[in-house]
Amino acid sequence: MMSINNNFKNGIVIIGAGNVATHLSLSLKKNNFSISCIYSKTLHSAEKLAGKLNTDFTNDLDKIPKNADLYVLSIKDENILSVVNNLNIENGIVVHTAGSISVDVFKNHFKDYGVFYPLQTFSKSRELDFSNIPICIEASNQDVKNKLFYLANCLCKSVYKIDSEKRKVLHLAAVYASNFANHMFAVAADILDQADISFDLLKPLIKETVLKAIESDPQKAQTGPAVRNDQNVIKNHLQMLNDNQEFEKIYRFVSESIFKLNQEKNK
Amino acid sequence: MMSINNNFKNGIVIIGAGNVATHLSLSLKKNNFSISCIYSKTLHSAEKLAGKLNTDFTNDLDKIPKNADLYVLSIKDENILSVVNNLNIENGIVVHTAGSISVDVFKNHFKDYGVFYPLQTFSKSRELDFSNIPICIEASNQDVKNKLFYLANCLCKSVYKIDSEKRKVLHLAAVYASNFANHMFAVAADILDQADISFDLLKPLIKETVLKAIESDPQKAQTGPAVRNDQNVIKNHLQMLNDNQEFEKIYRFVSESIFKLNQEKNK
Repeated sequence: MMSINNNFKNGIVIIGAGNVATHLSLSLKKNNFSISCIYSKTLHSAEKLAGKLNTDFTNDLDKIPKNADLYVLSIKDENILSVVNNLNIENGIVVHTAGSISVDVFKNHFKDYGVFYPLQTFSKSRELDFSNIPICIEASNQDVKNKLFYLANCLCKSVYKIDSEKRKVLHLAAVYASNFANHMFAVAADILDQADISFDLLKPLIKETVLKAIESDPQKAQTGPAVRNDQNVIKNHLQMLNDNQEFEKIYRFVSESIFKLNQEKNK
Repeated sequence: MMSINNNFKNGIVIIGAGNVATHLSLSLKKNNFSISCIYSKTLHSAEKLAGKLNTDFTNDLDKIPKNADLYVLSIKDENILSVVNNLNIENGIVVHTAGSISVDVFKNHFKDYGVFYPLQTFSKSRELDFSNIPICIEASNQDVKNKLFYLANCLCKSVYKIDSEKRKVLHLAAVYASNFANHMFAVAADILDQADISFDLLKPLIKETVLKAIESDPQKAQTGPAVRNDQNVIKNHLQMLNDNQEFEKIYRFVSESIFKLNQEKNK
């Protein structure tokens, strides 16, 4: 029999049924926390996730339990304010999981609130081990902080106290490190695709690039024509990109930026 | 006792003592090929690498063995032509290891020649398992092709026959996938550094980003504000980058490119 975690024993309500909501709620359940309800404005999504968790679901904010210990808003940034305005609860902590939204969005609406931001890229179709994901927490008071810290520690190994300003910086950096790096892979794949070359050829290179960046310092690990300022290669590459303005622009600006950053750091 | 590989039994001469020359020659030795000489115009570099291989070295092209079976040019692109013009050998195959230089650089100079291009990012200070590195070969005739194929197969699991045109495309794609992706990590590290946040926080995100890209399709794996066209977040991020024109420019253009590529692919 599953023993319910005694903290948050009145249950946790998940507002949202997207990528983060899915992974987070599954990890909470795995760690014996009780999920009492899934809300999504799309009933089908709420039902699907609730099915995995064997719990209740609704698409009506008025019907979610009023006495839960924790309400987790894992929804699009632009929908947070509307949920905040329409969430009528007795007590319990309200948190969101967004990188770019200040904790102050909850001010004057709830007594106990905070942020519970798992720093990861989530896709529903991929299994994720939550224990390796850093969770950044922020809280309206020490008691809430302790509770969120406890919760985060049950799920993962690395919990950080990060305020809203720093979380925004972290989110900005994450866009470069994840979305933008991934776009460089996507551009590479597209270039290869047009020449009928398999993306598989690049995979060992990509793996080693990342290991190098992670194990040392990405700036120091830089190689290639841009950091060497090898204008012959750069000129040839720009010529090859003649018919793709987007990719050419990226090539030009990123190469310039690589060279400049290297010069700054070696001053 | 080490048994010398019977192919290439007259030895292999390595021209160059940089990152690629170092890793490649060490891997050749490990696979029982006989390295008969290391040449570098910097005598100290030649001596250092020759020491690791327990072989001869020189900084005088006239003093390298004339009867070796293979001459590997692992030098800067701009120095290849000058070595080609000054390399006086009896016979033996001459290859270079460069991504962007056509095999034709050897035409009219040697009878047997080719390209031996290991697709990887090399640093002297990092150990590398050559067996996971794709090697792209090209050759002036079938006999040379067979010999290079045999050699490559001794070192690694994946050998590809890639002509000069395709190799150039591959090199261009590799610049995006390795140098440019790495720069995105470097920018992220720089942004965090300025806010006194540890780069460690991003490492699980970076690892998962790469696994996703490798295991599926990087374009389909894209997440974040740009692909969602979330103008609120994008506007906020650009504001935060106000005092860094370089990073702001990259943010703007890469975000636009992510959105456009996504629209094209979903047409």
